[in-house]
Amino acid sequence: MTAAHTPEQVWQTILAETVEAVENEPLLASFLHLSVLRHSSFDRVLAFHLSSKLASAVMDARTLYEMYHQALKTDTTIHDAAIADIIAYYERDPACDAYSLPLLYFKGYHAIQAHRINHHLWLQGRKTLAYFLQNRSSEVFGVDIHPAATFGKGIMIDHGTGIVIGETAVLGDDISMLHGVTLGGSGKESGDRHPKIGNGVMIGANASVLGNIRIHECAKIGAGSVVVNDVPARTTVVGVPAKEVGKLGSIPSQEMDQTLS
Amino acid sequence: MTAAHTPEQVWQTILAETVEAVENEPLLASFLHLSVLRHSSFDRVLAFHLSSKLASAVMDARTLYEMYHQALKTDTTIHDAAIADIIAYYERDPACDAYSLPLLYFKGYHAIQAHRINHHLWLQGRKTLAYFLQNRSSEVFGVDIHPAATFGKGIMIDHGTGIVIGETAVLGDDISMLHGVTLGGSGKESGDRHPKIGNGVMIGANASVLGNIRIHECAKIGAGSVVVNDVPARTTVVGVPAKEVGKLGSIPSQEMDQTLS
Amino acid sequence: MTAAHTPEQVWQTILAETVEAVENEPLLASFLHLSVLRHSSFDRVLAFHLSSKLASAVMDARTLYEMYHQALKTDTTIHDAAIADIIAYYERDPACDAYSLPLLYFKGYHAIQAHRINHHLWLQGRKTLAYFLQNRSSEVFGVDIHPAATFGKGIMIDHGTGIVIGETAVLGDDISMLHGVTLGGSGKESGDRHPKIGNGVMIGANASVLGNIRIHECAKIGAGSVVVNDVPARTTVVGVPAKEVGKLGSIPSQEMDQTLS
Amino acid sequence: MTAAHTPEQVWQTILAETVEAVENEPLLASFLHLSVLRHSSFDRVLAFHLSSKLASAVMDARTLYEMYHQALKTDTTIHDAAIADIIAYYERDPACDAYSLPLLYFKGYHAIQAHRINHHLWLQGRKTLAYFLQNRSSEVFGVDIHPAATFGKGIMIDHGTGIVIGETAVLGDDISMLHGVTLGGSGKESGDRHPKIGNGVMIGANASVLGNIRIHECAKIGAGSVVVNDVPARTTVVGVPAKEVGKLGSIPSQEMDQTLS
Amino acid sequence: MTAAHTPEQVWQTILAETVEAVENEPLLASFLHLSVLRHSSFDRVLAFHLSSKLASAVMDARTLYEMYHQALKTDTTIHDAAIADIIAYYERDPACDAYSLPLLYFKGYHAIQAHRINHHLWLQGRKTLAYFLQNRSSEVFGVDIHPAATFGKGIMIDHGTGIVIGETAVLGDDISMLHGVTLGGSGKESGDRHPKIGNGVMIGANASVLGNIRIHECAKIGAGSVVVNDVPARTTVVGVPAKEVGKLGSIPSQEMDQTLS
Amino acid sequence: MTAAHTPEQVWQTILAETVEAVENEPLLASFLHLSVLRHSSFDRVLAFHLSSKLASAVMDARTLYEMYHQALKTDTTIHDAAIADIIAYYERDPACDAYSLPLLYFKGYHAIQAHRINHHLWLQGRKTLAYFLQNRSSEVFGVDIHPAATFGKGIMIDHGTGIVIGETAVLGDDISMLHGVTLGGSGKESGDRHPKIGNGVMIGANASVLGNIRIHECAKIGAGSVVVNDVPARTTVVGVPAKEVGKLGSIPSQEMDQTLS
Repeated sequence: MTAAHTPEQVWQTILAETVEAVENEPLLASFLHLSVLRHSSFDRVLAFHLSSKLASAVMDARTLYEMYHQALKTDTTIHDAAIADIIAYYERDPACDAYSLPLLYFKGYHAIQAHRINHHLWLQGRKTLAYFLQNRSSEVFGVDIHPAATFGKGIMIDHGTGIVIGETAVLGDDISMLHGVTLGGSGKESGDRHPKIGNGVMIGANASVLGNIRIHECAKIGAGSVVVNDVPARTTVVGVPAKEVGKLGSIPSQEMDQTLS
Repeated sequence: MTAAHTPEQVWQTILAETVEAVENEPLLASFLHLSVLRHSSFDRVLAFHLSSKLASAVMDARTLYEMYHQALKTDTTIHDAAIADIIAYYERDPACDAYSLPLLYFKGYHAIQAHRINHHLWLQGRKTLAYFLQNRSSEVFGVDIHPAATFGKGIMIDHGTGIVIGETAVLGDDISMLHGVTLGGSGKESGDRHPKIGNGVMIGANASVLGNIRIHECAKIGAGSVVVNDVPARTTVVGVPAKEVGKLGSIPSQEMDQTLS
Repeated sequence: MTAAHTPEQVWQTILAETVEAVENEPLLASFLHLSVLRHSSFDRVLAFHLSSKLASAVMDARTLYEMYHQALKTDTTIHDAAIADIIAYYERDPACDAYSLPLLYFKGYHAIQAHRINHHLWLQGRKTLAYFLQNRSSEVFGVDIHPAATFGKGIMIDHGTGIVIGETAVLGDDISMLHGVTLGGSGKESGDRHPKIGNGVMIGANASVLGNIRIHECAKIGAGSVVVNDVPARTTVVGVPAKEVGKLGSIPSQEMDQTLS
Repeated sequence: MTAAHTPEQVWQTILAETVEAVENEPLLASFLHLSVLRHSSFDRVLAFHLSSKLASAVMDARTLYEMYHQALKTDTTIHDAAIADIIAYYERDPACDAYSLPLLYFKGYHAIQAHRINHHLWLQGRKTLAYFLQNRSSEVFGVDIHPAATFGKGIMIDHGTGIVIGETAVLGDDISMLHGVTLGGSGKESGDRHPKIGNGVMIGANASVLGNIRIHECAKIGAGSVVVNDVPARTTVVGVPAKEVGKLGSIPSQEMDQTLS
Repeated sequence: MTAAHTPEQVWQTILAETVEAVENEPLLASFLHLSVLRHSSFDRVLAFHLSSKLASAVMDARTLYEMYHQALKTDTTIHDAAIADIIAYYERDPACDAYSLPLLYFKGYHAIQAHRINHHLWLQGRKTLAYFLQNRSSEVFGVDIHPAATFGKGIMIDHGTGIVIGETAVLGDDISMLHGVTLGGSGKESGDRHPKIGNGVMIGANASVLGNIRIHECAKIGAGSVVVNDVPARTTVVGVPAKEVGKLGSIPSQEMDQTLS
Repeated sequence: MTAAHTPEQVWQTILAETVEAVENEPLLASFLHLSVLRHSSFDRVLAFHLSSKLASAVMDARTLYEMYHQALKTDTTIHDAAIADIIAYYERDPACDAYSLPLLYFKGYHAIQAHRINHHLWLQGRKTLAYFLQNRSSEVFGVDIHPAATFGKGIMIDHGTGIVIGETAVLGDDISMLHGVTLGGSGKESGDRHPKIGNGVMIGANASVLGNIRIHECAKIGAGSVVVNDVPARTTVVGVPAKEVGKLGSIPSQEMDQTLS
């Protein structure tokens, strides 16, 4: 596949990949028609697919689908960020060689997009609904993101299981994160108490970043580390508690280098 | 909301919060009527809600609902502990500003209550059923608690994903635990092989406490730490393996201070 | 129960345990008849049970059941490995005192078997289907195994939540692993980039093993450790990053000793 | 089977027949355990079975089950009539050689019992709920009985499809009716406008009885007939419109003689 | 309730009746919120309710809901006829004392509206979809209407079970029909072969009208009759085969007089 | 379409029609792939489609699918008759212009095939299962056929709602029947008590044929008639009770002429 750059290119490439998948895999033909091919836009596919995953005995799929689609129509920045995230997976994850893979099969991607819409609901004052949907995402994806958390675009959460991101966390653009990462609070007092993550940061598997601290741009946090203090830009930290172990000359969220240096 | 102290106050406050939620959020009205408002008691709501979450293609929701309700009628200490847990979330979790939130939307809370009933079944000799339900909790909540584990009351498990608690673990009262915590065994021999956690203890995200050791009252275990030895009362331990880093003058499960000191 | 050694002994013991469970637990009788007793072979039970767990609104249970059963008929090594895994759980997990427990109630076991079939599909060139099913396993079991990963037999994954195993990982025989273990990649380049795990290795809870490194036979990795370099045979490593802390005279995957030495 | 006469005998015979069916038919074992064997009373089985049949995407099975069971506890005459109806099927329908057959497999029987409970709800003033459930019975059983219609006991509706019984219809005891029978109204005015059917009456397939007329005891109405006038006791009427064709010396609802004389 | 005349009055009355029903019947509150109160228009309620009833394991409720809603937006005459039909039930059926009853609980009404949309699909050339949906209506409602049949407005089908209406049947306005009515064809040749029913006609229960014949305006066909010849205006026919038995001075579809004269 | 004569031609034509339908109707693509295109034989499609329609909350679709497929493999005469029936619909029903229509969308056809398999189960002594499935067919299709009834091949039941066929009924070949037809018993005594229907017979809508009588070959029974005596070959009977009205020179089940002569 040629690299896709615009939202329209990404959408057309996803359609072409799906047509090919239907031909190659009859067992998925019904799923792919239902979820992708019969829809007229990327937004409808995303809304439909998320509603398939998050509907339950007590929350009708039609209701969710309509609500997701409405949110995507109302706030078009969600669409743009959802496309930027797909490109991020395609460029950074060596196991991702098609644009349709994150959209259809990566629960980290699903959890981010469910959160983007949930954040939109939160800003509209629909807190109970946002809590309800946070709970479903946590059950289905194993990813627990408070609806108030602020996300930039071009974010990749790989695998996703065990991710926890708190209420006052702020994520910049072009961040990569592996499963098990915690962006947690500092204590029982409410108020601004969660990390601020700069552009280009990479956070390794099962790392915990705790409190209202700042991880400056292009920093890297090693797997399994626990970070309770600010981390300077272009710096690698490792350990429990984490200590600085090196400096970086490239963008770690792009490189995805998991070595502890 | 005024703070609620008695079980009846908690129940009435939950009802009042739910009536308000129905008015503010039409999308949830059907869920809230079905799951809360049409029921005559807290026990019925809890039994119904858990059965909604744990029913499956091979385990009928009606069967689960009846069984949960029967257990709550038979062993009323479950009800009292379930209320004490709600109060614990309300007092300790800054993102929890309503009594209905843990009951309806926090999977850590759901997993604790499912375990309380499961433990009751285990004590009645219904081991196969308890294994079946442990498995469902593990699938749905990502929380894996052996039905024989003993729990006190006033327990808060925040977020929950990845929690594992073994067969001979014993938890006291007023304990707080974040996601990813393991209270694990020491080897392949059966017998008493899991941790004993004292009152007031706080265990940070992704920490592992392994073997038949004792975490004395009001100790604090830092995020990501691995503990294989006893921890004295009012002491903070951190690291892999964990080492003592400080002493505490307050109750860590109440403070929820996640700093590593 | 007498220990079972051959596949036929395991299957007959599972049937006998299930008949006893039906008598003791009427609430499970319908599930046990549907899932076990009415089937004519271990393969049918496994295919049926996995399809119950992984079916969804967009993937019909009949379709999955047929496909799983077909795979088990085509590649009989899956059957043998699935039996060897049951024996591994029975021998190594002190909470597992019946052969039917892993088959019916342990999601780590379910995730391994779903992967074995997924790997078979991958080798047949059915990549899209394998991605689809990897995603479902990740949602339902919280276990994310790339379909290309190679598994030996006699593997036990305890609890399972949070497990991530990458595309070029290779696991030998008789390995034990706890929940939260990552066998992760080293960066954004494709190619051989994940760990090779030798026979008899034991990996503790939440440990991360990163990059194309070799964990030699009968090594032990402590809980919460992060390993980025080769580990010699019969050696224990601990910490973030992990360091050698001792040598072993027995097979750690059999002993399941979680102490950090 | 020996004939059963008391409600307890009927219940015990049903249990015995079901135990035998489980042994003979493994494919139904899960259904029979779920629906019959695990329940402690006839009422619970009836409530559970009706709720299985009438639940839908918009009406939870648990809600229906609880409501049906509550109604059976509140009004014990429904239980007695439900037993009398089973005996009626057993004695009059040559294709019914077991007491469990109407309870489990005859939709005419299901429709009568759903109506009995619906009538109870109607008398309690729960009209909307009664309309909702009438609609479900009409969809599932093809039997449309207004919740206000009054039924005696010992009633058999064979096959059932197409039955329509209006608001002010009154049925005595020991009546037999085949499919397609209409007990309809006379016009658009409200008020007493439907037939009154005496004890022992038999109404053949697809017959229509229209208006506030009286079918006196032990009368017989031939298949396909349309009756718009009173019918004397012990009289057979046939045709469109129906005319008297003979007199009867036995009880037609017991004899089930479908000849037109 | 005051009589409603305009579509907007009918819609507002339905909403008011539903609000009242929620207050009086908690068991239906979830259904009524989900199906009525949360929607912004009559069309959405109709589309949602029909999709609840006709969705199945092989046809997703979201897909149906979208398709029904789209059809109602595209062809607004369906909306007008659907309202006229509600008024017809309210005015002619003495058991219908609320405008919400046909919309929510009368399967005859549901079958008519499902047909109106099906006819729209047929005219758009979507024949396979129309056959699919005809089949579902026939299963769920017991009403089998060929998608090519032409319907006027103000049509009431009471009860509905067993109705069959063929491909070239044409129904005028203000027609009333009871259950079991057949408007059938004359033979195996295709072409115009079904009845034409004039305005104001009333057809009694289980009557069959067969062949390309004309039932002129305000004629009445008695229950159980079989009609194979034209029927003049304002005439009652009865019997098998049907013969003229009287003349009418009023509109029989309004009077609903079921006597055979 | 060219007329198909052999089973293989019918199957290939059905596949070709379905491929075309997928292209023309995206809304059905998922259904048609799931139910038809991904299967390797007519038998699998029939087994899958019937199991989709008859599965329920208490009877798993996988179980039914397997059982139906097994029956079709065991008794290949069912396959042949199922094909002959499709040809019968195609030739006799002017609304049926494709071979896939009866298979996919005509519930009369579905009811016949469900009965054919049910009869096979009955002959194998699986009476309880056969009653269970008769009940489901009666609920879903509105067609109630006793599993012991004997059917020839080339049978068409048009529309189907309200059909009732009793235990000792015997149907020859090439019979056509409309909805609402009853082949009923004569009384409460067991034994041979239902009609015997000769080859080529046509029975009109809502006609009742009652008792152990013989309808000789190529007879025709008018709509709405009630027949309680033998009918000679090539004779038309009409009325309640039915009387001879004419003689026939052609095969009425082929002509489908519904006039009463």
